Amino acid sequence: MTEHSVTVENTLQSLLASKKYPTIRDILVTMNPADIAAVFSGCEPEQLPLLFRLLPKELAAESFVEMESDQQELLIRGLSDSELRQVMDELYVDDAVDIVEEMPANVVQRILAQSDPQMRKEINEILQYPENSAGSVMTTEYVSLRPDMTVGDAILRIRRTGVDKETIYTCYVLENRLLVGTVSVKSLLLAPSDMQTIDSVMESGSGLITVNTHTDQEEVAQMMSKYNLLAIPVVDSDNRMVGIVTFDDAMDVMEDETTEDMEIMAGITPSDKTYLRSSPWDLFKHRIPWLALLMVSATFTGLIITSFEEALAAQVALTAFIPMLMDTGGNSGSQSSVTVIRAISLNELEFRDLPSVIWKEIRTAVMCGIALAILCFAKIMLVDRMLLANDDITVLVAAVVCLTMLVTIIIAKVVGCVLPMCAKKLGFDPAVMASPFITTTVDALSLLVYFSIANGLLHL
Amino acid sequence: MTEHSVTVENTLQSLLASKKYPTIRDILVTMNPADIAAVFSGCEPEQLPLLFRLLPKELAAESFVEMESDQQELLIRGLSDSELRQVMDELYVDDAVDIVEEMPANVVQRILAQSDPQMRKEINEILQYPENSAGSVMTTEYVSLRPDMTVGDAILRIRRTGVDKETIYTCYVLENRLLVGTVSVKSLLLAPSDMQTIDSVMESGSGLITVNTHTDQEEVAQMMSKYNLLAIPVVDSDNRMVGIVTFDDAMDVMEDETTEDMEIMAGITPSDKTYLRSSPWDLFKHRIPWLALLMVSATFTGLIITSFEEALAAQVALTAFIPMLMDTGGNSGSQSSVTVIRAISLNELEFRDLPSVIWKEIRTAVMCGIALAILCFAKIMLVDRMLLANDDITVLVAAVVCLTMLVTIIIAKVVGCVLPMCAKKLGFDPAVMASPFITTTVDALSLLVYFSIANGLLHL
Repeated sequence: MTEHSVTVENTLQSLLASKKYPTIRDILVTMNPADIAAVFSGCEPEQLPLLFRLLPKELAAESFVEMESDQQELLIRGLSDSELRQVMDELYVDDAVDIVEEMPANVVQRILAQSDPQMRKEINEILQYPENSAGSVMTTEYVSLRPDMTVGDAILRIRRTGVDKETIYTCYVLENRLLVGTVSVKSLLLAPSDMQTIDSVMESGSGLITVNTHTDQEEVAQMMSKYNLLAIPVVDSDNRMVGIVTFDDAMDVMEDETTEDMEIMAGITPSDKTYLRSSPWDLFKHRIPWLALLMVSATFTGLIITSFEEALAAQVALTAFIPMLMDTGGNSGSQSSVTVIRAISLNELEFRDLPSVIWKEIRTAVMCGIALAILCFAKIMLVDRMLLANDDITVLVAAVVCLTMLVTIIIAKVVGCVLPMCAKKLGFDPAVMASPFITTTVDALSLLVYFSIANGLLHL
Repeated sequence: MTEHSVTVENTLQSLLASKKYPTIRDILVTMNPADIAAVFSGCEPEQLPLLFRLLPKELAAESFVEMESDQQELLIRGLSDSELRQVMDELYVDDAVDIVEEMPANVVQRILAQSDPQMRKEINEILQYPENSAGSVMTTEYVSLRPDMTVGDAILRIRRTGVDKETIYTCYVLENRLLVGTVSVKSLLLAPSDMQTIDSVMESGSGLITVNTHTDQEEVAQMMSKYNLLAIPVVDSDNRMVGIVTFDDAMDVMEDETTEDMEIMAGITPSDKTYLRSSPWDLFKHRIPWLALLMVSATFTGLIITSFEEALAAQVALTAFIPMLMDTGGNSGSQSSVTVIRAISLNELEFRDLPSVIWKEIRTAVMCGIALAILCFAKIMLVDRMLLANDDITVLVAAVVCLTMLVTIIIAKVVGCVLPMCAKKLGFDPAVMASPFITTTVDALSLLVYFSIANGLLHL
């Protein structure tokens, strides 16, 4: 798709240069909002309002939603008040909120001033909810029905009011503002008779899935995926219906949360900006805290080595295996921690599973440890001792290294599964306990094991 | 939700013990398919067919789809041929294919024998497509319309044929089996007149988004997310419409691909099994290849240390900083690689961006490197030299360590961004180039830098 956009971009640039506006309009109206936004992102700031004005108003609003926030800001500054009002009239409330959240205060004021009073009220309500909650990503525009309506009435109501709703395919049956059921357009259309009442075709009871305004958006997306829902109703603490989250927002949430998890797991403070739009300074700010913290905590590994300095001087060959032992420990630990972190975020693991997880990891670690120890012993004897003729490396040294490897892997795998589960239990994001943190912990432990075993076997 | 399932499970167990089948049925029919499947997963194998027979046939089929494949297999073995046929009659083709793909050959034969000939033909067709392609996740059950139909005719056709379709909300307008447009039920219901023809309300032209049968499922999911599509049409190489992929399958694909990416990034061969269902032997098989490969490749770091053994013996204090330098290099490299890998998988980066990515990473690395070098210098002088009174650590040693740190971070960040982008260009999964691989590469490079700088400054 990107290549397609590039070609269109070049065409549009030459058409712009020759002021062929009707042709440009003809091209743009055949395109999708997301592709139009991609083309716009390559244009000069002063061309933006010009191009934007060529779009029919509905397509204009849809493309506006798909643009990056810095482009949106440029465009809003270039539009007149009445043009801005037209855009706001076409937006769904949840999209308007997303835009408002990203803009500086003076732009927000202009946006709110140009929204109709109902829209302004709803934007302000949604802005009250905590970031990343269901309330903050929902829309308040849904189709509501009454349980005593007939199917025919319901279809008429959808036809009359549906144009302003983000989805009409799931309708919500309310009684005194309480949600009593949901009904899909499919079941309305396929109902045997138009005279049936809504309560005879709706889903209700314990099969009714809802989330609270404060439910975390990641959990909302997972529930929609689990129950294959097009939209999920959001209720307040008194069980009154306040809005819906639609599948397209859930998909965006899933993408954002994955990016965030991966960033945290790599020791990066999460950022909303895409990579290409982040300046080196942005990247620096998000990367330096963890680097600094982990560097300082590596003081412990340094201390351990210093305190065994004499042993190392007596048996210089031992130093050469430190990186291999530390890396293998780190890799073993990350394998467990990443597996467990992912299982936690998919709700497959809970804290009460901890004993069975530890037991499973120990058995896996013993298998991995024995296999690697044997491989390592063979490698040391064949490569280091025979091929490279390093006489410092005795069978005993090889035994120390291989035994350390076995113990390190067991420790690493246990630490790797325990830390994320405890973090979750204590209310932290388990992803924080991924590779960098585990590596630092396992490094120190593996060095202690190494020198203890060396002391014991080599009598240093 | 899980806690809810546990309680229901206990209730059901006591009801089962007292043979209160009508009560069990009454409870089950109020529940969602996904929750029923969760309850079933906690039951004894011999109870499964018993409980399953209590469900109304549509709910039975929906719950069957949500079950884990080992449970499905147990259940199929416990059902009679006619019961199995009833389940197959209720399944959508794509769900049937998912089940068939997981079953052993003799179960597959029974399933195919109990499917009607049309279903059997469609299952076999979908099974031909490569794994993880759009063809392998699509369903062939969609609503097709003709461009010359009226809106009223179209609604009638949906009412007549919709019950067997996975989604009715997007209908596909075909002319000689070629896709000429799509039309949503929303636009049908909101059309000003029932007498309008379909070609006057349909989306067509370059705004029509399609994927090919061979398009990778991850790309399919991303396109649906980008264009906010409920369903995406799949066409063959002659542009003939062959099926659709629906949003619920796209959400599952997104979850599976995220898990796979994270596993690969942690040096684990991806697996389809959930963590709790994987045996230690399964975990071992998926973890040992990378551990072994990375361990053997750490031979290089060992060699480098061995060749500088004399220098290390002359200046023992240098050894203590090896872990810190290696870890900081590894962490810096993972930060870049994970950021770049994620940007590649979200289609934000392409190979032609490589020079600008390298330039951005170098500037970031210089900032991180200088900040950390200063912090490290302060730490060494204050903690190691003054607080711990280690006289081996001179200002010159501290300078060697800090200079190495700066150079290592720059190398690590460049390696971290270049390797994934080159992997992508060469047709490999960029995720393979994440932390473990980068760590091993950066370890060797950072040791070389360390000893070169030490040689230069300390004249070892």
